[in-house]
Amino acid sequence: MCSVNQSCVLILVFKKMKQNIKVIAFDADDTLWVNETFFRDAEKVFATIMKPFAKADEVYRKLYEVEMNNMLLYGYGIKGFMLSLIETANVISNNHVSAQQIGEIIEVGKSMLQKPVELLDGVEQVLKSLQGDYRLIVATKGDLLDQERKLRKSGLLPYFHHIEVMSDKTPSTYQALIKHLDIENHELLMVGNSLKSDILPVLQIGSWGVHVPFHTTWHHEEVNEPIISDQFYTLGSIIELEELMQD
Amino acid sequence: MCSVNQSCVLILVFKKMKQNIKVIAFDADDTLWVNETFFRDAEKVFATIMKPFAKADEVYRKLYEVEMNNMLLYGYGIKGFMLSLIETANVISNNHVSAQQIGEIIEVGKSMLQKPVELLDGVEQVLKSLQGDYRLIVATKGDLLDQERKLRKSGLLPYFHHIEVMSDKTPSTYQALIKHLDIENHELLMVGNSLKSDILPVLQIGSWGVHVPFHTTWHHEEVNEPIISDQFYTLGSIIELEELMQD
Repeated sequence: MCSVNQSCVLILVFKKMKQNIKVIAFDADDTLWVNETFFRDAEKVFATIMKPFAKADEVYRKLYEVEMNNMLLYGYGIKGFMLSLIETANVISNNHVSAQQIGEIIEVGKSMLQKPVELLDGVEQVLKSLQGDYRLIVATKGDLLDQERKLRKSGLLPYFHHIEVMSDKTPSTYQALIKHLDIENHELLMVGNSLKSDILPVLQIGSWGVHVPFHTTWHHEEVNEPIISDQFYTLGSIIELEELMQD
Repeated sequence: MCSVNQSCVLILVFKKMKQNIKVIAFDADDTLWVNETFFRDAEKVFATIMKPFAKADEVYRKLYEVEMNNMLLYGYGIKGFMLSLIETANVISNNHVSAQQIGEIIEVGKSMLQKPVELLDGVEQVLKSLQGDYRLIVATKGDLLDQERKLRKSGLLPYFHHIEVMSDKTPSTYQALIKHLDIENHELLMVGNSLKSDILPVLQIGSWGVHVPFHTTWHHEEVNEPIISDQFYTLGSIIELEELMQD
């Protein structure tokens, strides 16, 4: 379990100090189940629809630009993504995209909303083994309806005491969550795939962070600075959380 | 305060029995601030954009049909509405709507998302007078990000102990809210403009409902059956809630 980048000393420090943790919060998308892959797949289909107007690289670049411009207005989630796809189609085609192509884009989004939930390896086993010793919750960004639907489909609802859908993940929104849970900051451990959303803001308020990288990270969520903290650990797979949290 | 439809006996029963109420939950859209009006205005602009393809009546009818078909997928809120507008444009124009017209539709939606919040008359006065005697919360449907933004813009946040954004308002989602608030069912009073969403489901679980009609009701939220319950009262304006809740 001690990887090349992290000495066994680190894991011992983490294991020794973690005795205060009462609540483990799990990010949902790309931590409990596959998500980013569906966005990447949808973008590929979108690039195919846009082929008459631009090369794939330009399509991806323009889409990202439109998404960032719309972020404050639309937030995270598939519906905002769909609206950004349509807007990008207009921009890239210089208003020559056809109604039929717009219809195809809407269908891409609708099929994303109806995707079955693909749990990541080991998720259920980890939740089962931790539920007796910790209060488990979900702390996720995204669209309320969509995340509730995925949780229902996932079959994981019985493991969780609370589901928090947050419009954004910042130190202050985590602080509000901690207040709501009626615990101290150092009693929360957040587990997630995004350093930017799941780890940095919780470390900033004195909570704990375990990073479980997913193979695909949205450019918007990337972090390039190394993170050094006694309250932070990186795992190769969520299944290793079981051993990390053992006494 | 005793209206033609409701005898003074009713208000006395309500006032006598309401002593158990601990939490007053307010719906947001069209209860605290104007909302439906903006949707109706957007539909009018949409009908103008669609004029080359169909008459306004047909546009409204088709839009409602598309919205109902998409309800389970998109839920409530402006982004889902925008996607339904675009889909309706495709259907009505038989795939002849132009990219430019689609762009205009997106702008209609974006301007809805940026509208200033128009508080309804008396809202702030009522919240101010009730906040000492009751725990006040918001219980609203719609898009998480959009409702949070409106609450911030409204300046009403300091009056509320809790904000609950619900993907739907049903007896079971209200029951979950009551559990979360750690109160009994008969200790909750819900105040709102929609009989279907704000009143019927709370009466069904033994909570209280005060209906404050807004001049415009979305067809989807209409109820035609009369409601008879000791735990229900209708007001002409939210300002009358102050008197109703007085000892």
